[in-house]
Amino acid sequence: MKVSLGQKILSRNEECASQNRDFFNKHKIVCLNVISSPGAGKTSLLVRTITDLRERLQIGVIEGDIETDNDAQKILAAGAQAFQIQTKGACHLSAEQVYNALKMIDAEKMNLIFIENVGNLVCPSAFDLGEGRRVVILSVPEGDDKPAKYPGTFAGASVVLINKIDLIEHLDFNLQRVLADIHTVNPNAKIFQLSAKTGQGMEAWYDWLKEQIET
Amino acid sequence: MKVSLGQKILSRNEECASQNRDFFNKHKIVCLNVISSPGAGKTSLLVRTITDLRERLQIGVIEGDIETDNDAQKILAAGAQAFQIQTKGACHLSAEQVYNALKMIDAEKMNLIFIENVGNLVCPSAFDLGEGRRVVILSVPEGDDKPAKYPGTFAGASVVLINKIDLIEHLDFNLQRVLADIHTVNPNAKIFQLSAKTGQGMEAWYDWLKEQIET
Repeated sequence: MKVSLGQKILSRNEECASQNRDFFNKHKIVCLNVISSPGAGKTSLLVRTITDLRERLQIGVIEGDIETDNDAQKILAAGAQAFQIQTKGACHLSAEQVYNALKMIDAEKMNLIFIENVGNLVCPSAFDLGEGRRVVILSVPEGDDKPAKYPGTFAGASVVLINKIDLIEHLDFNLQRVLADIHTVNPNAKIFQLSAKTGQGMEAWYDWLKEQIET
Repeated sequence: MKVSLGQKILSRNEECASQNRDFFNKHKIVCLNVISSPGAGKTSLLVRTITDLRERLQIGVIEGDIETDNDAQKILAAGAQAFQIQTKGACHLSAEQVYNALKMIDAEKMNLIFIENVGNLVCPSAFDLGEGRRVVILSVPEGDDKPAKYPGTFAGASVVLINKIDLIEHLDFNLQRVLADIHTVNPNAKIFQLSAKTGQGMEAWYDWLKEQIET
């Protein structure tokens, strides 16, 4: 019974994910599903990215949080369209929530849509939202053991952003270990070291974004 | 079907939680379920607590991680008994896993048992493990918006530890906002500001632990 219900939920999710994927393909939209622990800096990263790229790209954001619309407010203030999903306790976004949210912004006019998932390094990785690629953010204060402890999430990432790199001097964080552990679970992941706060390393991330949109 | 299965899982969990609770009561063991985001400092807090209190208290730790037994190794090195549960993808511990783990350490000889849950600020809060109380750790680098964004987890805490307080000078973290937001969702929570790294503020936490054991 457990398995069959699990399959039913996942199969419903796959169906909606597939609809989302068709929509993104049809309108040539790059959609990125952004996954991290609470407080790794997803919103700060998006705010800075929007501020720096809004002249060149049409960017939309679908925000997922258990409660509050704080993050959508920050995205709106940065100059992008945003829609906030409040999951009211659920630990991840579903493809159906994203499907409905896409109707609330001018999605078909966008070059780039970010889905900021619920802050959780476990559950979101099990749910395909129809995104093109996944971006996993690891922040330096979380520690250098996280890729080994949460391998499934890192294995599914096209890109890993090591954020808050400006704090590395204040912390015991073995960057070589992190790079090696990510490589072990995911040899193909692109890795960028950056700070959404200071701006350090953001250009390489922007170059990668532009490549996705142009190809 | 969804509801009835959910009820079945939760009811099985309640049954095991109740057995655990009876065990802790019978042996006068204080059991604390420690919940936080990945990297908030659960293991570091326990290592320092064990190091400082092991002469006076018998402490055991049940560790939950998706993969690796790194954390149990650190606890063993600090001088406490530990048993590692690897959940292999599951986002929280269950009462049954704890029930089985209690047999792997000399649980009945302990004054204090910590259950270090899987790093996740959402899912663990829905599962009673039979613990006496919950300890939620919020680390300063995660940001001051977390109690408002994850109210369910903070509402269930007897104690909130604001960890990595030594980093506050390097970050934009509005401590007054955090204290107010915790109070809003949970007026009865005890709150301690501390740093498991530097030792700042640990004595008040130890005093609280000793009170629990003596009463």
